[in-house]
Amino acid sequence: MDRREGGRIQSGFYIGVLDIGGTKILAGLIDPAGELVAHRRIETQAARGADDVIARCAALLCELAQETRVPVETLAGVGCSVPGPLDQDKGLVIFSPNLGWLDVPLVEMLQRALGRNEFGSYVPVVIDDDAHCAALGEASRGAARGAVSAVYVTISTGIGAGVIINGNIYRGAHGFAGEVGHITIEPAGPLCACGNSGCFEALASGSAIAAQGQQAVLCGNQTTLANLDADPALLTAEQVVRAAEAGDAVATRIVERAGTYLGIGLAAVATAFDPEMIVVGGGVARPGGMLLRQAREVFQARAIS
Amino acid sequence: MDRREGGRIQSGFYIGVLDIGGTKILAGLIDPAGELVAHRRIETQAARGADDVIARCAALLCELAQETRVPVETLAGVGCSVPGPLDQDKGLVIFSPNLGWLDVPLVEMLQRALGRNEFGSYVPVVIDDDAHCAALGEASRGAARGAVSAVYVTISTGIGAGVIINGNIYRGAHGFAGEVGHITIEPAGPLCACGNSGCFEALASGSAIAAQGQQAVLCGNQTTLANLDADPALLTAEQVVRAAEAGDAVATRIVERAGTYLGIGLAAVATAFDPEMIVVGGGVARPGGMLLRQAREVFQARAIS
Repeated sequence: MDRREGGRIQSGFYIGVLDIGGTKILAGLIDPAGELVAHRRIETQAARGADDVIARCAALLCELAQETRVPVETLAGVGCSVPGPLDQDKGLVIFSPNLGWLDVPLVEMLQRALGRNEFGSYVPVVIDDDAHCAALGEASRGAARGAVSAVYVTISTGIGAGVIINGNIYRGAHGFAGEVGHITIEPAGPLCACGNSGCFEALASGSAIAAQGQQAVLCGNQTTLANLDADPALLTAEQVVRAAEAGDAVATRIVERAGTYLGIGLAAVATAFDPEMIVVGGGVARPGGMLLRQAREVFQARAIS
Repeated sequence: MDRREGGRIQSGFYIGVLDIGGTKILAGLIDPAGELVAHRRIETQAARGADDVIARCAALLCELAQETRVPVETLAGVGCSVPGPLDQDKGLVIFSPNLGWLDVPLVEMLQRALGRNEFGSYVPVVIDDDAHCAALGEASRGAARGAVSAVYVTISTGIGAGVIINGNIYRGAHGFAGEVGHITIEPAGPLCACGNSGCFEALASGSAIAAQGQQAVLCGNQTTLANLDADPALLTAEQVVRAAEAGDAVATRIVERAGTYLGIGLAAVATAFDPEMIVVGGGVARPGGMLLRQAREVFQARAIS
């Protein structure tokens, strides 16, 4: 539905999208028909600070706009997904441990980096929690399409959820609904980044699996994880899962344990919300893998419906 | 707003209400202005079976109607609260361990017991889960009046919750939403009536407290609970709580432990739903008592918002 007026693309209906994650940034441009017409991925390099990350996000959108011949300042808006919790009204990322952000005014910073349009105003920017964005995506175009109620649970560095109720995202009274990573499922369990012990996230997330793999190597356990070239402190969840699936006994115990807790946590989500479906995503949750197989078994035993 | 027509009370706008619990039945009559004009309480005596219980419910409503001079068959309807889970559309109580009911067609049985009206049809009967009814009550007339989102958690023989979202009860896809008593909060914990181990209900409910008190006496612990006249197997949660508040060390440990798990479970509810408020009710949760004091402390440390 491009409308060319006097040789210039009428681009008021294009929108930009950004997904700022702990390890990578995805940027895209959506055309007036709702199709993704251009996209690109870069490393986040969060250690370079929020200013640097946000400047590169803006630059990425500008590149995509240039290629698509859409002046970036004429975008109808930019939707930006970011690990929460955040304050949507104030355009503020309150706390994002994976990015190292605390009270970052993302909307304002991104708007300034994108510049003003010919009327002197900024491109509208809307931010939302990554789990909420993923849940909305699954509900509008993915596995939960048409569902009245659904919960999307993301298992990556952390664990978060987006809750769909009556076809809409349910945010709760303070925007924290679905922060299921911080439900206690083993009171005497390991410390969590939030300060409590035994949170779902501290037992079943990618960082929990990685931490246990690192500990196993540092404690001198007999495991192929010790043979990997890398510094044990840089061992990733993916490496532990791969070792488990290749038959390593120590890695298998770690992944099965995490899978058990994953099943317990997902059963808690199912029992609280009784959704039509739970969609599991995120880097760690490979379909058909050992982690999800174990989780499914425990889930089926413990979920009430 | 009574309207007398030819000396007869026009009673089409009266409604009957029933609350069938594990130990008692409450019946009431609501006048057209929404006021409770008559009520009565009897023992459930669930062991006498569903037929007997339901027949006495109907008799109770008939008595109240007679006293109020409202022919029972002219009631606009009867609303009946019962421990779930249940199928509202089919009028069926699916499973109610505290009543010993399994697939009881409550609506049909109650309608037959109440009889037909002059047009040959039955009084409409609507049933709902007791936690849902309590939540609706709190939202319309109680502590959660005006709240957009709230969770009512009842701590009695079992633990259940009614969830208010956008001012309405949220039932979930299969009517099980809010069955928070069966969230696992201590995987290696005691067995629950549902067959799983370490459910919230198996750790913090009235029956959990009573069971631990009974066990303490049977194991020969030094406790004033052993001096109560009653059969140790009949020891109640109220007796254990009373002994704890009178300074009994064994009872104190039991109540503090249950309070800790109560706090953990309520924090899970707060973290999942992020409601404006959580209202705690039920026979075991005495305001200002030791159980809620301990629960509040743990809740404040573990709830995310």
